[in-house]
Amino acid sequence: MQFTLEDISDDEIARRRAIYEPLTDSVRRLIDAVIRTEVPDDVVAVARERIDDIVDTLRAKQIDGPYGVRYTPDFVGMPWGNSVVGVRNAIAPPLRTFHDGHEVSAEFTLGAAYEGPGDHVHGGVAAMILDQVLGEAASVDNVPCYTGTISLRYVRPTPLGPLTARASIVGRDGRKKTVRGTLADAEGVTVEAEGVFIVPRDWTGRMPRASKDHSSAHTQD
Amino acid sequence: MQFTLEDISDDEIARRRAIYEPLTDSVRRLIDAVIRTEVPDDVVAVARERIDDIVDTLRAKQIDGPYGVRYTPDFVGMPWGNSVVGVRNAIAPPLRTFHDGHEVSAEFTLGAAYEGPGDHVHGGVAAMILDQVLGEAASVDNVPCYTGTISLRYVRPTPLGPLTARASIVGRDGRKKTVRGTLADAEGVTVEAEGVFIVPRDWTGRMPRASKDHSSAHTQD
Repeated sequence: MQFTLEDISDDEIARRRAIYEPLTDSVRRLIDAVIRTEVPDDVVAVARERIDDIVDTLRAKQIDGPYGVRYTPDFVGMPWGNSVVGVRNAIAPPLRTFHDGHEVSAEFTLGAAYEGPGDHVHGGVAAMILDQVLGEAASVDNVPCYTGTISLRYVRPTPLGPLTARASIVGRDGRKKTVRGTLADAEGVTVEAEGVFIVPRDWTGRMPRASKDHSSAHTQD
Repeated sequence: MQFTLEDISDDEIARRRAIYEPLTDSVRRLIDAVIRTEVPDDVVAVARERIDDIVDTLRAKQIDGPYGVRYTPDFVGMPWGNSVVGVRNAIAPPLRTFHDGHEVSAEFTLGAAYEGPGDHVHGGVAAMILDQVLGEAASVDNVPCYTGTISLRYVRPTPLGPLTARASIVGRDGRKKTVRGTLADAEGVTVEAEGVFIVPRDWTGRMPRASKDHSSAHTQD
């Protein structure tokens, strides 16, 4: 696993966030609009041409390959390309995770783009979100680890709308940590998850290191 | 679970697909460009304004709520809003699944938008894709079912790039079907999955019915 050092200040991070957060939010609204629009075909065709123009403009200068997992010299994480928490990734809802003791939680709202069964969250999207939240919970003790296994039990269908995910460590055995979590709507739990996360064999107690999947630095996002 | 009847011909489906597939592909390129761009801040700001304009145009007429799972009177499925296979959902790679006997498979390429660890597929994205492919495999016998449980074992990190997912039914017990599948790159399996899928109690042998999560009709996409 790679990470990329971004030698920038907290002010520079804030400045970049202020530029890219609104841009990515606009793309999220566009994703939703493309699913739900009923405008005439010629209007759709013009929209496509205009989107292609914007893509050309943005691609005039771009990094070669994916964004990577970036850290500042102060070990502030910038996983801005991450599919679940990335502030520059329009696929991400995005989740903002919070730590309260050993519990990691996130409140978020899922719309049309996260649909599987009619009016309900795709089971795979529930799995994707829980993988991220359990992974962050596994790393709350500042020891990074990667996902070994994860098991999900679908208690009932999850409606689109406001949801909460939570997770915390429930057991440890050598380099293995067992983490449990849930996805819930206002009526209660819809999906239960349990995962085993593994500390890299070469972990030496310093952040950031190679061989990280989930790291405590993710909690900044 | 709901489904929506779309009383349209095969020609009309083809016509709509020809309009929306290119539009959604353009949005997929935009998602990638927003993650990777390094153009000056003022260029980003203008891009955002232009995206907001397009969103306003598309929202001039739109459906109320998510897309839903649609079927034609001939039981041709149109899950075009689906997060994994939806041709109108830019979050979806999208997967196109193929049936060969009892095996369901899909070949696809994942780029920057599906990143978790640096240069690698987010573990949750792997879970999301396998949930869809296992769900379709569970329904190859034309009996719909919903996900009960799914367990994933991460054999090694999955690199971004060309990948293959496969799944098939390995066991049956009353209303339960056990399905196994894998995600693999050119070097072999990276993630193993096993799920238990359950046929609705009120299933009467006719498609489409209420209480569907995955259905054989998904195979059209």
